[in-house]
Amino acid sequence: MQYRVAAIGGDGIGPEIVAAGRDVLDAAGERYGFDIDWTEFDIGAERYLAAGELLTEEDIQDLSKFPAIYFGAIGDERVRPGILEKGILLAIRFHFDQYINLRPIRLLEGVQTPLANKRPEDIDFVVVRENTEDFYVGIGSRFAGGREQKTLEVLREMYSIRFGLDVETDAEEVAYQIGVITREGAGRVIRYAFDLAMQRRKKVTSVDKANVLSDVYGLWRDVFSEVAAGYPGVSTEFNFVDAVTMWFLKNPEWFDVVVTPNMFGDIITDLGAMIQGGLGLAPGGNINPSGTSMFEPIHGSAPKYRGQDVANPFATVWAGSMLLDHIGEHEAAAAVLRAIERSILEGFVTRDMGGEKKTSEVGRHLAALVRTV
Amino acid sequence: MQYRVAAIGGDGIGPEIVAAGRDVLDAAGERYGFDIDWTEFDIGAERYLAAGELLTEEDIQDLSKFPAIYFGAIGDERVRPGILEKGILLAIRFHFDQYINLRPIRLLEGVQTPLANKRPEDIDFVVVRENTEDFYVGIGSRFAGGREQKTLEVLREMYSIRFGLDVETDAEEVAYQIGVITREGAGRVIRYAFDLAMQRRKKVTSVDKANVLSDVYGLWRDVFSEVAAGYPGVSTEFNFVDAVTMWFLKNPEWFDVVVTPNMFGDIITDLGAMIQGGLGLAPGGNINPSGTSMFEPIHGSAPKYRGQDVANPFATVWAGSMLLDHIGEHEAAAAVLRAIERSILEGFVTRDMGGEKKTSEVGRHLAALVRTV
Ligand SMILES: CC(C)[C@H](C(=O)O)[C@@H](O)C(=O)O
Ligand SMILES: CC(C)[C@H](C(=O)O)[C@@H](O)C(=O)O
Repeated sequence: MQYRVAAIGGDGIGPEIVAAGRDVLDAAGERYGFDIDWTEFDIGAERYLAAGELLTEEDIQDLSKFPAIYFGAIGDERVRPGILEKGILLAIRFHFDQYINLRPIRLLEGVQTPLANKRPEDIDFVVVRENTEDFYVGIGSRFAGGREQKTLEVLREMYSIRFGLDVETDAEEVAYQIGVITREGAGRVIRYAFDLAMQRRKKVTSVDKANVLSDVYGLWRDVFSEVAAGYPGVSTEFNFVDAVTMWFLKNPEWFDVVVTPNMFGDIITDLGAMIQGGLGLAPGGNINPSGTSMFEPIHGSAPKYRGQDVANPFATVWAGSMLLDHIGEHEAAAAVLRAIERSILEGFVTRDMGGEKKTSEVGRHLAALVRTV
Repeated sequence: MQYRVAAIGGDGIGPEIVAAGRDVLDAAGERYGFDIDWTEFDIGAERYLAAGELLTEEDIQDLSKFPAIYFGAIGDERVRPGILEKGILLAIRFHFDQYINLRPIRLLEGVQTPLANKRPEDIDFVVVRENTEDFYVGIGSRFAGGREQKTLEVLREMYSIRFGLDVETDAEEVAYQIGVITREGAGRVIRYAFDLAMQRRKKVTSVDKANVLSDVYGLWRDVFSEVAAGYPGVSTEFNFVDAVTMWFLKNPEWFDVVVTPNMFGDIITDLGAMIQGGLGLAPGGNINPSGTSMFEPIHGSAPKYRGQDVANPFATVWAGSMLLDHIGEHEAAAAVLRAIERSILEGFVTRDMGGEKKTSEVGRHLAALVRTV
């Protein structure tokens, strides 16, 4: 069996951790009888600074031929915040309609959590973050006093939503930002969450702020209730986003599958990452079940550690395990995760986890472990 | 000295905790030579259900005569989420232009935090939440397919911002929500945060998501930088909201004053409440420096404990201490906080904190303590 996978190392520590992850996945392939045909893409800050290119039409054409992208990280101190994130990372999520952002929150054996009294069996849930709508549609504007007229197109291919706006104000300077949720957009990701819960502990928690942002999250809630009606065996619960941050700390064991609109998902998965031991251990999958999906550590590019071979590759390797799961190599995926767990229990870890191993050493060690573990 | 204060018990446990708080404040007044003239307002779910009234024009007229409102909680299982919150709590915040929502995050001696290895000296900062703009302006809509035309007025009295909207879509059902930030609105609360930091450890952290919601939070950031330039002695830092949830857990000792737009403030102060021991210990002040301000516990009305005399009154009493500070009774304010600390160290606490005392018992105990502590 052969799979074609695109690799985007990106910026900062990105290329190093993706290199480590590729070695581990290749080793898993040798054991389980498949082969990954990697194609590297030069996408990131360097190219942007040299050629002004972020994600081009040609990149999109090329990437669309792959079932999966293995992504490192983007972000560079020479580029203003937002440019690379929106022009590359969010552009991929939106273009390939990767409407599911899957983020396991699981405390592995041997990992320290900042929470007192919580152990691995208490922290094991999955956040399903909607990944193409909400306040991430990127529409808004900023203008000084007076009047502004605009026409904005959002989610053009999917739903061709057009906003005609005519804003008038006495204020010195005003900025506005528009979030959009559609019935279809909410429905598909919520259904995915329920299907996932059916394979787990059969509980789905919805996160919103319907008591204040009643329009977008009111629709979200209604769709959730309608989908829930089709899964009578699944227990459900609504949590406000403010409250859910408390329960993540106090009662993480309550959660099984948590489904959330995009922006709140961004926030609560970083919180989740911290309770599972930090960003060094937090992977994510951006999934389009019938298109090109992308797997990445959820941390950033940590430019100050670039080229030093000190970054923690576990999140990237774990994202690789998710990638294998996605393409159907479930046994290999499980072995990769076991290798990570073994390496942690052995104390074979990078500096951030209290060890003294290099990125490349951990990568090689995991590649060796995955052959036998 | 006499002060007139409005009391709104509200729903659920609200009346019980406000009663306890009033006793404590009255006792502090006896010791420090002032007198509070309380006026009770019947505002909340019962009145809404009986008369359909939330916050009436007459209520607003009446409340505007008071420098301060002592507020319990609103929320009732018979009323759909959002009605009471928006019609009463947010209505008061907006009507009285209480643009500062001040929320101390402080781990008192003797209180358990869910964080391993953090002690009272590590958790002592203040969140200054903007309280009148952002996604709390409540503008948005929801409609099925086709086309919708609307005119919306926001922040009418302050900035008369008018949105003319013309939305067209192919989607089955669409909802949108608009957030607004103005230069004036951001500037005044950020200046308050810097002034506060000048009296503390001289550090201000701004929270935003300017890399994605670049219009509203881009303006926020620019205003922050401009204000910061006027306070050369204050060190500053930008944090993305997702990252800040991690640092609250890992390095709460980094923070001094955290200033944040409204919605992110809602989320991170619940997280902050949890690290300081839970909602039973989290007070807030909604402040208009030259108008009517409101002080409240940040928890809800917990309807299932209504009338049982079991609710934890500490957050409300602490809010009372903030009220005293606000009206200029600083010594009394400090004594109220010392009384809370003493009561906790004595183990004279309600069930939620592992004790067996009733709400009213704790109230009377604090009232006694505040005369001597
Ligand atoms: C880098 C940023 C645009 C991104 C997001 O906000 O989604 C990141 O925080 C994440 O969670 O993947
Ligand atoms: C009740 C709700 C409207 C309110 C808010 O969102 O501001 C509450 O969560 C708070 O933080 O005071």
